[in-house]
Amino acid sequence: MMLQTAGRRMKITQTFPWPIVRAYSTPARNPSFASWTDEHKAYFQQLLKPECVLTNTDDTEAYTVDWLKKYKANSSHQMVLKPKTTEQVSAILKYCNECNLPVVPQGGNTGLVGGSVPVYDEIVLSTNLMNSVISFDEVSGILVCEAGCILENLDNHVAKHGHMMPLDLGAKGTCQIGGNIATNAGGLRLLRYGSLHGTVLGIEAVLADGTVIDCLSTMRKDNTGYDLKQLFIGSEGTLGVVTKVSIFTPPRSLFKNVALLACEDFVSVQKAFVEAKKHLGEVLSAVEFMDRHSYYVLIETSGSNSDHDMEKLNEYLEDVMGSGVVVDGTVAQDEAQARKLFLIREDITVALSARGYVYKYDISLPIEQYYKVAEETRERLVSTDAKVVCYGHIGDCNVHLNVSTLEYDDQVFNALEPFIFEWTSKYRGSISAEHGIGRHKPEYLYMSKSGNAIKLMQQMKKMMDPKGILNPYKVLPETE
Amino acid sequence: MMLQTAGRRMKITQTFPWPIVRAYSTPARNPSFASWTDEHKAYFQQLLKPECVLTNTDDTEAYTVDWLKKYKANSSHQMVLKPKTTEQVSAILKYCNECNLPVVPQGGNTGLVGGSVPVYDEIVLSTNLMNSVISFDEVSGILVCEAGCILENLDNHVAKHGHMMPLDLGAKGTCQIGGNIATNAGGLRLLRYGSLHGTVLGIEAVLADGTVIDCLSTMRKDNTGYDLKQLFIGSEGTLGVVTKVSIFTPPRSLFKNVALLACEDFVSVQKAFVEAKKHLGEVLSAVEFMDRHSYYVLIETSGSNSDHDMEKLNEYLEDVMGSGVVVDGTVAQDEAQARKLFLIREDITVALSARGYVYKYDISLPIEQYYKVAEETRERLVSTDAKVVCYGHIGDCNVHLNVSTLEYDDQVFNALEPFIFEWTSKYRGSISAEHGIGRHKPEYLYMSKSGNAIKLMQQMKKMMDPKGILNPYKVLPETE
Repeated sequence: MMLQTAGRRMKITQTFPWPIVRAYSTPARNPSFASWTDEHKAYFQQLLKPECVLTNTDDTEAYTVDWLKKYKANSSHQMVLKPKTTEQVSAILKYCNECNLPVVPQGGNTGLVGGSVPVYDEIVLSTNLMNSVISFDEVSGILVCEAGCILENLDNHVAKHGHMMPLDLGAKGTCQIGGNIATNAGGLRLLRYGSLHGTVLGIEAVLADGTVIDCLSTMRKDNTGYDLKQLFIGSEGTLGVVTKVSIFTPPRSLFKNVALLACEDFVSVQKAFVEAKKHLGEVLSAVEFMDRHSYYVLIETSGSNSDHDMEKLNEYLEDVMGSGVVVDGTVAQDEAQARKLFLIREDITVALSARGYVYKYDISLPIEQYYKVAEETRERLVSTDAKVVCYGHIGDCNVHLNVSTLEYDDQVFNALEPFIFEWTSKYRGSISAEHGIGRHKPEYLYMSKSGNAIKLMQQMKKMMDPKGILNPYKVLPETE
Repeated sequence: MMLQTAGRRMKITQTFPWPIVRAYSTPARNPSFASWTDEHKAYFQQLLKPECVLTNTDDTEAYTVDWLKKYKANSSHQMVLKPKTTEQVSAILKYCNECNLPVVPQGGNTGLVGGSVPVYDEIVLSTNLMNSVISFDEVSGILVCEAGCILENLDNHVAKHGHMMPLDLGAKGTCQIGGNIATNAGGLRLLRYGSLHGTVLGIEAVLADGTVIDCLSTMRKDNTGYDLKQLFIGSEGTLGVVTKVSIFTPPRSLFKNVALLACEDFVSVQKAFVEAKKHLGEVLSAVEFMDRHSYYVLIETSGSNSDHDMEKLNEYLEDVMGSGVVVDGTVAQDEAQARKLFLIREDITVALSARGYVYKYDISLPIEQYYKVAEETRERLVSTDAKVVCYGHIGDCNVHLNVSTLEYDDQVFNALEPFIFEWTSKYRGSISAEHGIGRHKPEYLYMSKSGNAIKLMQQMKKMMDPKGILNPYKVLPETE
């Protein structure tokens, strides 16, 4: 079965050129890499169909710039390959490895750290045409599919059988499950259903030299040797290309309630969260925070019995409103209203982008520091036109700190970096909660990981991709 | 804070010698390994306190045989080291690596595949004395502790704050969290709370050369580089020694219901399971199967509202009993009764052991094949005195197939192996669902993992432990 592209992308008003190249030092092109030639092109055209090899700028452009238009390849010499099978992916990589041709694996290209676009003239390996569902087991809820399936399409597919994908994020209409796994996407449902490290049961991936690693187990329990699939989850396409996926999908909750609550300060926000866990227990499915003029908490429940869920929610609201923890609130009366409340949260990104330039940070912090980072950042920028907005998945201690200015400003940039990373590091937070490292943060990796850990990562990369052809210049800092 | 050993071990009636050595070929002792001498002993006595270095047979015996008494070290030259700190573990491994001394990391020694006892004269590195809780955060539910903490003690500790450990297994009174992680223990709560790959947030581990890898994050979301901690989860102490752990503990459910249901055939068992997921949704916390004269399903719910849970359970029971899927059933009226129902399940192991010898298999299978393996095994053994009993976590497709005989019998053994592994492999099941590979199954690893995958595992082992001193002869087949 083939799934159609839903094709929903947020409209982004930003246009080129952004001064990202100024802000982040681009590493020098690796001199050991070859640049693709007509001979290579002919090989690929013969391996794939000619229409699956793109080299005209008009055709390749969408693949060589990220959706926020912050990262663009520093070369006009671009090629995009669109394989349809694992065997084709394997043949492409084997050939590229032999010819020293660097490769960027790309899914829906919705990442925020420049991980899925070329830095120079790396060949883009797009999984767009690998979008078949292979199987779905209704008893166990286990879905097996190709890497290029779009998340929202998969969610709709399993919904027909009363199940849901264990992850949900703003880019769901465009992002692909292979990319989700390669970047260990988090999102809204992590609080309830856990991370992809737990829900992904199997992966088929192709290594840099074309070796196919088949770990496509469909078993929830499988302790047979090292759990190799974990290596590919979150390694951002630098250790292998994910081609197939087996994933556990939980039963779809029949009933959903959404409430938007206002608090007077951040201490009350924390209390509202703790009480939500107590009162709502097993039906709590999302706790989102946003500071739009005031402190807001968005609470979602989902469960199998509407009356039970509503009774739990009402008891919770009576408690937190009675005690003054929450000063105002609204409960969605139907699905349309519920969607509207969530859109307030999702629209923040769009509204900020419309204002001009946005500096985006995605960090995890202990709950005590969760909001302090916004306050301290605001103080640092008091003399500028910057607006500091903080929102995120508070249930997972994940803060999205967004700073918007009318236009890009070096002074603001220098006030933000490395300040925010250092601040996060000081409290043992994560400098990248869910967006990854990509091209944005390799130099800052040491702020969340120890020297020994980074060295081991580099050894692993060297072992699995000795020539470094897979997604070069990304994730890991260069070895000395 | 120090936690006391709960010291609960099941009484095992089996005594030595078991013919395990006959049944499984023991690999030859690695000739590149040294054997410890008085000089080494003096070094360790100076590094640790003298009472933390055991070499008398009376002292070491408990550490050199597994609890089922199936695996025993083939040497009387034994040493047990009991470090108290990560620094001591690091110094021990650095020294052993330099001196070519092999090491077996050991937690509670409750494993079932011989992974935690020496094969020859490997030095046992016991984490018994590393049993402090480092921190517990009540808002996020995140526990940080040393590897030697006993699972049940940790569960009691977080219970005081309204939380629970995300895993539960029969050996909880003896097994240690470090060993649970090293073996990726599954158990009863996996259905609801997922695997340790999802719930473990951070690990500190020591590599074979003494390098300390600090990935002790306490963040639920942390996408900074490769997720190294995953390597240690399930690698059975062959890649490093886990010294500290950070783990997410879910809120403890206030109310629990347990029902024991009888079905007439295995098709009805499957239906009872599917209906349980539909009716009980988010409060379903365990679905266990056992075939004791008939087909039984044990259902557990746990939730935050007693009335709601009971209403859901009653609706479920009305449905499955009304439709004839379930022909008989009992619901525990209080906690004591609930515990009793679970004990029926736990006692199967003890009852089988009491009969004589038990051949134990722990496999995952697609639900359609879940029970067929028991039926076909029974057919193969019809001419012997063997009893084939099948129970397990049906919610996770995990079968524990147990074959008991009055005494060990080569004919039975040869009828079982490799038959059961081949059968499992044919249906793409897992030849080790939750017990691991250890010393029992390295030769059969290829039945659940492809050649390319095993080769990559061997490369990883070579990279992280070039001399192979960590838990030798276990998990991976020998390289040619």
